[in-house]
Amino acid sequence: MNTSGSMFELVKQITTRPGYTSAAGTEVISAEPGEVHMQIKKKPNLLQFNGFFHGGVIAGLADHAAGGAVTTALPQGKIAVTIDLHVNFLAPAKGEFIIARAKAIQVGTTVATAKVEVFSSENSQEVLCSIAIVSLRVVDMPKSV
Amino acid sequence: MNTSGSMFELVKQITTRPGYTSAAGTEVISAEPGEVHMQIKKKPNLLQFNGFFHGGVIAGLADHAAGGAVTTALPQGKIAVTIDLHVNFLAPAKGEFIIARAKAIQVGTTVATAKVEVFSSENSQEVLCSIAIVSLRVVDMPKSV
Amino acid sequence: MNTSGSMFELVKQITTRPGYTSAAGTEVISAEPGEVHMQIKKKPNLLQFNGFFHGGVIAGLADHAAGGAVTTALPQGKIAVTIDLHVNFLAPAKGEFIIARAKAIQVGTTVATAKVEVFSSENSQEVLCSIAIVSLRVVDMPKSV
Amino acid sequence: MNTSGSMFELVKQITTRPGYTSAAGTEVISAEPGEVHMQIKKKPNLLQFNGFFHGGVIAGLADHAAGGAVTTALPQGKIAVTIDLHVNFLAPAKGEFIIARAKAIQVGTTVATAKVEVFSSENSQEVLCSIAIVSLRVVDMPKSV
Repeated sequence: MNTSGSMFELVKQITTRPGYTSAAGTEVISAEPGEVHMQIKKKPNLLQFNGFFHGGVIAGLADHAAGGAVTTALPQGKIAVTIDLHVNFLAPAKGEFIIARAKAIQVGTTVATAKVEVFSSENSQEVLCSIAIVSLRVVDMPKSV
Repeated sequence: MNTSGSMFELVKQITTRPGYTSAAGTEVISAEPGEVHMQIKKKPNLLQFNGFFHGGVIAGLADHAAGGAVTTALPQGKIAVTIDLHVNFLAPAKGEFIIARAKAIQVGTTVATAKVEVFSSENSQEVLCSIAIVSLRVVDMPKSV
Repeated sequence: MNTSGSMFELVKQITTRPGYTSAAGTEVISAEPGEVHMQIKKKPNLLQFNGFFHGGVIAGLADHAAGGAVTTALPQGKIAVTIDLHVNFLAPAKGEFIIARAKAIQVGTTVATAKVEVFSSENSQEVLCSIAIVSLRVVDMPKSV
Repeated sequence: MNTSGSMFELVKQITTRPGYTSAAGTEVISAEPGEVHMQIKKKPNLLQFNGFFHGGVIAGLADHAAGGAVTTALPQGKIAVTIDLHVNFLAPAKGEFIIARAKAIQVGTTVATAKVEVFSSENSQEVLCSIAIVSLRVVDMPKSV
């Protein structure tokens, strides 16, 4: 099992390398074994026509945070990849930030499940805007990570 | 009910205005009443660490295509917004394009359901990489659309 | 809004009338506005080949409890019916009882969302065996209820 | 890989042994590698207050049929168990029968996905009343099967 410090580094490293999560501006807030928090700041290219965060951006953040929450709960050398992603949209994501708080709720040797709450945040006020349940499978960490 | 031509224009207009869907490069291939096809071309900022399309991008395309498929089946002045989005990842999206083919499978006066198949396409070879089921509710089209 | 007492009566009345929920032996433990707890005792005709509660029985209890949790949060004369049901199976339901604790997490005028945790209970020890997210729509209570 | 005949026998054997599926009256219509059809005849203890099949019964049939569709596509000695079950209710199941047609759409060595369409049937008229997507994991067949 990783220590907390190296977990934060691992999650940050995967999140900030070139690609979708870094282009979206995903920031890792915290990463403990089985629990990862991340946020994205509002930018024009993440919004839908009404000026709120697009559902795809919320889904993508939830998916990525779920992967982090399960991976940090796995033995070193293993990584979790998504089998399926279920997202409910509860309220418009109007805030300056969306914040995902992901928790591994079941971790086995081949499959795992995470729950993610996504909050819309504005002036330190948080509103639950989305809830996601993610099923993942456990695979060997690719060398490229 | 819209004619097919004005539907294509409506879906294209919503898709190409500034925001997430246009920034991702979403192109509308076709829009008939209850069925919409869209695609996104590979770009570095849409990928995950392994070089495949990120799950969030697939989810976002499925979500947007589902909204189009249901909206085109609604009376004029109505638009469908997502209640929940369920996406299964079946194969890596390794191709040059992801193509979403969305179909409304139930359309009521207040809620609707769409099914979306997402294909990874390379050299005109298509592989089913994802399937999504989307529940939506029917609301009045905002003036801003 | 109903008072708590009449809510418990309403949920009990719907649960115990002839049909699936009463045949399965569903008991209402509590019913407050937006939160309903129910349980089913182990019986041979509710089990799968390994002697655990069948997934369909868990799904049915979650569905019914979600409907109760949302209906108790609605104005009198309205009832919630399921749009879609998402159930994750986290651990075998080996216990003498399954207990569903359902909570409305978003209630609007036309749609609502509930979260349900299902526990397997044995000798007063509870294990989380399933989590469900349910989307529902709000309709007029039929005269027959 | 099993032959079709022995598949039908395997699926029938699991379905008809004492427990939930046999108590509900589940009949196996057909079982081919990766595709299984099953039905349940209307009985008072399977219905909700409005006289239609209860959502839990539909979910249970979809779950069981999905397990059959994937198991018949697996090497001998392996069986599929559900990770998560997503069911959309599209129309009331008013008919004399509900019929589930389940298809494996992705089968790997550790996880698999099935799609199930559930029809309400009356006088040989079928109406699509439900669609389910099921994620499963592959485990060793227990000796007890």
